[in-house]
Amino acid sequence: MKAKFIVVEGLEGAGKSTAIQTVVDTLKDFGVHSMVKTREPGGTPLAEKLRSLVKEEHDGEVIYDMTELLLIYAARVQLVEGVIKPALNAGQWVIGDRHDLSSQAYQGGGRQIDLRMIQQLKMSALGDFEPDFTLYLDIDPEVGLERARGRGELDRIEKMDLSFFERTREQYLRLANADERIQIISAEQPLAYVQQDIQDVLMAWLSAQ
Amino acid sequence: MKAKFIVVEGLEGAGKSTAIQTVVDTLKDFGVHSMVKTREPGGTPLAEKLRSLVKEEHDGEVIYDMTELLLIYAARVQLVEGVIKPALNAGQWVIGDRHDLSSQAYQGGGRQIDLRMIQQLKMSALGDFEPDFTLYLDIDPEVGLERARGRGELDRIEKMDLSFFERTREQYLRLANADERIQIISAEQPLAYVQQDIQDVLMAWLSAQ
Repeated sequence: MKAKFIVVEGLEGAGKSTAIQTVVDTLKDFGVHSMVKTREPGGTPLAEKLRSLVKEEHDGEVIYDMTELLLIYAARVQLVEGVIKPALNAGQWVIGDRHDLSSQAYQGGGRQIDLRMIQQLKMSALGDFEPDFTLYLDIDPEVGLERARGRGELDRIEKMDLSFFERTREQYLRLANADERIQIISAEQPLAYVQQDIQDVLMAWLSAQ
Repeated sequence: MKAKFIVVEGLEGAGKSTAIQTVVDTLKDFGVHSMVKTREPGGTPLAEKLRSLVKEEHDGEVIYDMTELLLIYAARVQLVEGVIKPALNAGQWVIGDRHDLSSQAYQGGGRQIDLRMIQQLKMSALGDFEPDFTLYLDIDPEVGLERARGRGELDRIEKMDLSFFERTREQYLRLANADERIQIISAEQPLAYVQQDIQDVLMAWLSAQ
């Protein structure tokens, strides 16, 4: 089977890191042993610098929504062209902690940037490159933020108010429901059930390839 | 008269800094005393960080042309929304060392990114915001680079080969010839003639406003 690009998406505190481990374990059980993990924004030296610029406060300088969006796409181009495509071409599977769906959900939903504009920018920057399969971990933002806040200091985006994350979740759900390559996993269940759902859904997809 | 945004454009070594001084002096003679100078990419703390990222080498990490373009537009959004528009609204004239025409010439001509894509990105990022008047200092790139190289170490873009700057110049000329708000100044003349041309062209434009 050709190497695939599988992405885990979700709000802060949805349990992406644990889910990624479950994806890795499931792929190993399936016989896949050559894997690369990526995170976005980030994943190359320049993209990690851009991640910091997006997440930091800037001494009172306003970061405009469009600036944020452009920086995230700049980081994504570096990662896709420099890491993800070469890995896939070398037969390595890629497991992504976030990808383009995050921009459509956070910047399109949370920030309310016109979704067609984001999709046009995506086409200009990345063409028709897309993940093969996406697991969206769905969680009520109040529950997720409570978990995330337990982890320590909040960055510029985590500090947004609840309605921002509610709009982001709505957009995630809207996009996931419209695309059969995106599977929704309920992330509010006990961990063992979340892991079981991920395994089942992923195994079913792998078997169908 | 409403405050205006006047831009000086041109290749490395065309004499933009001197030309900007001539523009400032001419505006003073005309009775304009409240002015802000900007440079691109840059002009805000975040935009200056992005300028450095665009101009630096990155330890062997390739900077993709699209990444460069997106970073330049991110910096431009910060500058336009955070500095240029507020200055104009406060009645201050803005004199820009480069603006959007540079992206159309360097990234569209030099890097050969599709010009319609750049113009679409410009519309998404900045809407219909545009300079009121642009002076393009035209110079043979061999002459300009010779001058620029006399100034010391070259950055990532100044290190491009001659054909890159030839394509950039061609694009500058094509765009300038198609837009009456862009005036071409021959920058290979003796300095006093260049300054006289700038004064004449700018005064004629000011008088027509």
